[in-house]
Amino acid sequence: MSFGIDDLPVRDELRGKTPYGAPQLDVPVRLNTNENPYPLPEPLVERITERVREAARALNRYPDRDAIELRTKLAEYLTKSGGYEVALGNVWAANGSNEVIQQLLQTFGGPGRTAIGFEPSYSMHALIARGTGTGWISGPRNEDFTIDLAAAEKAIAEHRPDVVFITTPNNPTGNAVPPETVLALYEAAQAAKPSVVIVDEAYIEFSHGSSLLPLLEGRPNLVVSRTMSKAFGAAGLRLGYLAAHPAVVDAVQLVRLPYHLSAITQATALAALEHTDTLLKYVEQLKSERDRLVAELRAIGYDVTESDANFVQFGRFPDAHEAWRKILERGVLVRDNGVPGWLRVTAGTPEENDAFLDAVRELQCLVGDTPTPPKEYSA
Amino acid sequence: MSFGIDDLPVRDELRGKTPYGAPQLDVPVRLNTNENPYPLPEPLVERITERVREAARALNRYPDRDAIELRTKLAEYLTKSGGYEVALGNVWAANGSNEVIQQLLQTFGGPGRTAIGFEPSYSMHALIARGTGTGWISGPRNEDFTIDLAAAEKAIAEHRPDVVFITTPNNPTGNAVPPETVLALYEAAQAAKPSVVIVDEAYIEFSHGSSLLPLLEGRPNLVVSRTMSKAFGAAGLRLGYLAAHPAVVDAVQLVRLPYHLSAITQATALAALEHTDTLLKYVEQLKSERDRLVAELRAIGYDVTESDANFVQFGRFPDAHEAWRKILERGVLVRDNGVPGWLRVTAGTPEENDAFLDAVRELQCLVGDTPTPPKEYSA
Repeated sequence: MSFGIDDLPVRDELRGKTPYGAPQLDVPVRLNTNENPYPLPEPLVERITERVREAARALNRYPDRDAIELRTKLAEYLTKSGGYEVALGNVWAANGSNEVIQQLLQTFGGPGRTAIGFEPSYSMHALIARGTGTGWISGPRNEDFTIDLAAAEKAIAEHRPDVVFITTPNNPTGNAVPPETVLALYEAAQAAKPSVVIVDEAYIEFSHGSSLLPLLEGRPNLVVSRTMSKAFGAAGLRLGYLAAHPAVVDAVQLVRLPYHLSAITQATALAALEHTDTLLKYVEQLKSERDRLVAELRAIGYDVTESDANFVQFGRFPDAHEAWRKILERGVLVRDNGVPGWLRVTAGTPEENDAFLDAVRELQCLVGDTPTPPKEYSA
Repeated sequence: MSFGIDDLPVRDELRGKTPYGAPQLDVPVRLNTNENPYPLPEPLVERITERVREAARALNRYPDRDAIELRTKLAEYLTKSGGYEVALGNVWAANGSNEVIQQLLQTFGGPGRTAIGFEPSYSMHALIARGTGTGWISGPRNEDFTIDLAAAEKAIAEHRPDVVFITTPNNPTGNAVPPETVLALYEAAQAAKPSVVIVDEAYIEFSHGSSLLPLLEGRPNLVVSRTMSKAFGAAGLRLGYLAAHPAVVDAVQLVRLPYHLSAITQATALAALEHTDTLLKYVEQLKSERDRLVAELRAIGYDVTESDANFVQFGRFPDAHEAWRKILERGVLVRDNGVPGWLRVTAGTPEENDAFLDAVRELQCLVGDTPTPPKEYSA
């Protein structure tokens, strides 16, 4: 054996681990990472190059450390789309919602503290908890992947976590969490101990319902996190943001790396925000394709979880990974998130979705529809 | 009092703290953050916009998570300039060397572990240690700001840190650390306990000496960190990188946030690397201006620390902050890093340096040159 990770003085909890990330395979139809299938419109590409040219001319200087213009524009977008007025002081931005969450856990979690999430959910929450030394508590869900409120409240009362994650619409299952559940969990969390509740709304623009931003009113320990990766079609940009009480925005600045957000990133995000209306039209198209996927998968005979996102969870397979492999053989890459019996497909273009549906129609004949008994989730 | 940070359930060690960062003031001559005063040449600006245009057309997709092309080009640059051959597998990149260091501390430091630095040095090392739950040990220096090897070895043997920081050239003092000192500290650290030694070479391109990259040979626990902020004149880009044994590169991928480096950042950095030769010509000019600053400050009568960086530490002032303020009144922003009696000035353009020298010539008459006794450093 050559010298490897375990020969280095790495932290014990990292030994034997592998990096997070979906396989990046070169296949004709990639529906595995919930990317928006529509490239940015050419006028926006040109606007990005204009703003980047301007930023590049001052690239020898550090960027605006506080990203004032960008946060102001994000606040305007949230106010317009979220039904609740927020301003610069309520908004913070970072390199992807992953970095937003990392900063929140460095501020409110960390060594000697714990965070809870209701799984299966976005697996980076648990991984970022590990990376920040925050203890992780895996909370329960019902068999239909809704949050079991009574069980969740009990878990919160018992473990008294410092941070509570609620992902809505949930990833990888697709279902939204009703506002009254979020409110009940917030109350339970405050009753157990003053704790921060992070509502991860990465996919909210695709929802049948509306944003939970209005819940921020009078709730200083509530945080709503967002991303430009999905609805804005800008996964390659890495721009996540949050809305919360201004004290939260002040607090994350105690742990953020100074100048974390490059001048180029700020310029590109500002260009995209100028084109919000155009980009949100793609969202409407994707919502209708998502609804079509749900309907057609059900017509074929699959079980499908209700979806408020730009992806659909479908099953159930005796061996989900084997089904994933067989779909891949047909040139379509979907995601095996480790939820036993289920796979996840991103809503692509109509043609991509047709290719996917063709693939799973064939698959149906191959693997049957016998459900596998639930076991522990591996991711 | 309105609701503020301390009303939130933030970690105890964050209470009463303020965010890191130099004042960003709008003054004619800014010589406070060690930025390169030369804007990128216009052909490079155009190359950046070309590469960004191409990246923007695929912005709906996640970036190359492993930044293969960028790391390959960074390895080529290091091999060519550093006197030691490194390849893709030896190199890792992140959003600024701050994020590189954060990832290293998440991997090799963290809760229950400690890191040592020899202060005064780059204050982000201690702050990122705090942010990652790593215990911080402030190691000693001689009065001339060189590392006191015997005292440093003793501190390492006594505290058995998991991570050792050596900044060379050192910031904010400017002096380089001799290779034999780095070697001795590496040996001392390995003898005490297998620990990782991070050589922070953010300013190495400005040094009279050469990079310590060749020390990587046969030393898997040694890491050299670098940045494109200074020599490449790209502080706004936020691109830091490291060179080390491939096992170190594998290990940091266990804690890196997936897709941490945007497609736009990768495109911009690749464009800048195409123009390395042009950019390094500015470095030569800055080195000669740095040498002029040292000579002229000494001629005026100031104490000056030996500098291998693009900045110069000068003093000594009875009240460094008061001197900082008086220089600012003359339209020149330098840095008060909290080293009692000393200030730091970045080498700017010849005109900026003249303005600075004029300001401190006047100052000399105002504050005298009585040294203040050393007290504890505040940054």
